[in-house]
Amino acid sequence: MEKLKKEVGKKAAEYVESGMIVGLGTGSTAAFFVEELGRRIKEEGLKVIGVTTSHATSAQAKALGIPLKSIDEVSHVDLTVDGADEIDHQLNGIKGGGAALLMEKIVATYSKDYIWIVDEGKLSTHLGSFKVPVEVIPYGSEQLFRQFKEVGYAPTWRMSTSGEKVVTDMQHYIIDLHIDKIEDPATLAHELDCTVGVVEHGLFNNMVKKVIVAGTDGVRIIEK
Amino acid sequence: MEKLKKEVGKKAAEYVESGMIVGLGTGSTAAFFVEELGRRIKEEGLKVIGVTTSHATSAQAKALGIPLKSIDEVSHVDLTVDGADEIDHQLNGIKGGGAALLMEKIVATYSKDYIWIVDEGKLSTHLGSFKVPVEVIPYGSEQLFRQFKEVGYAPTWRMSTSGEKVVTDMQHYIIDLHIDKIEDPATLAHELDCTVGVVEHGLFNNMVKKVIVAGTDGVRIIEK
Repeated sequence: MEKLKKEVGKKAAEYVESGMIVGLGTGSTAAFFVEELGRRIKEEGLKVIGVTTSHATSAQAKALGIPLKSIDEVSHVDLTVDGADEIDHQLNGIKGGGAALLMEKIVATYSKDYIWIVDEGKLSTHLGSFKVPVEVIPYGSEQLFRQFKEVGYAPTWRMSTSGEKVVTDMQHYIIDLHIDKIEDPATLAHELDCTVGVVEHGLFNNMVKKVIVAGTDGVRIIEK
Repeated sequence: MEKLKKEVGKKAAEYVESGMIVGLGTGSTAAFFVEELGRRIKEEGLKVIGVTTSHATSAQAKALGIPLKSIDEVSHVDLTVDGADEIDHQLNGIKGGGAALLMEKIVATYSKDYIWIVDEGKLSTHLGSFKVPVEVIPYGSEQLFRQFKEVGYAPTWRMSTSGEKVVTDMQHYIIDLHIDKIEDPATLAHELDCTVGVVEHGLFNNMVKKVIVAGTDGVRIIEK
């Protein structure tokens, strides 16, 4: 699995050219992309500016010597590369397993190109095998949790290893919804967008046009 | 003006009965309601639990001896009373002049009854004379500001008296939109709900059924 993740990370880095402003995703697969970017900067003299999607990725990028700017300090982002937790045939996806979905979605929104890198285990006919992370305002979140429960979304709190509710980089909580099979991702996204107390959710519908997939047969590219 | 605000604040407090869980609004008009509630508790032995909509209102309520619980510690809210910055004929409204719109909307969402108290200067044929406050995630907010500017919403940052961007009780920024005449509040609300980086906005459409209005001719009640 680590080998597959590394392969797609390296492959995605081939799309980066000198002079680009590059969105740096979060998670174990994106980390291989960031690592490869660091290597190209060091060994090939590649010149890029990175825009981070989490405190964790910032730390990794800094350690690798990748120059960083905030999304608010750049005019645009040329290309963002990130992982995904589940992807359907229409290239809708679920993200947020690493609790960074809000910053990830913000950076993706302002990116001209956006690529996901995954191993083939992430491909699915219907979304829903993976939980849908929902980032929520702490004030009122117990009420929201109850509401999700009542409509049958089987919510659980995202907990840290020390047994506390996870607090995101932007100071919110995460409620994970367990829906099994999401018939219509657009309708669910819309419902969550319009729910008071929801800051953002992990449904990334219709946002990517290119996915790089690593399987036992090698790396392939799915384009829309 | 202060006299009118005081009148509606006192009038709204008449709707509160012993045993109720009461949402306490924020702002100069709601403050008179909270003050009157404090008086009734002290002088009439009224028994209520207050649920706050801002740190400022919490401080006022505590000083008046109103017992407080968080929205997450109660099963429901019986009645919330709050001010509003502008109200149209359909009782849609704009709130957030006091930068408390997020907590206000959360508490209102879980309230069985919801009353606004205003002076008649707040009544309008079309919403838009008052700016529309939008609570946003700081990360990416400069991009969002630019986007609002491009579509003609004439955004301004909410600034503190000391010249810094206002940080809300929930640690976000406020961007005020100056639209003049909002033809369709539902469409604008929907657009903002679906905008990445927007946490909440000050359009409170179709949320109240009763507004208590103070004018020079006395107090009147508008019901839907």
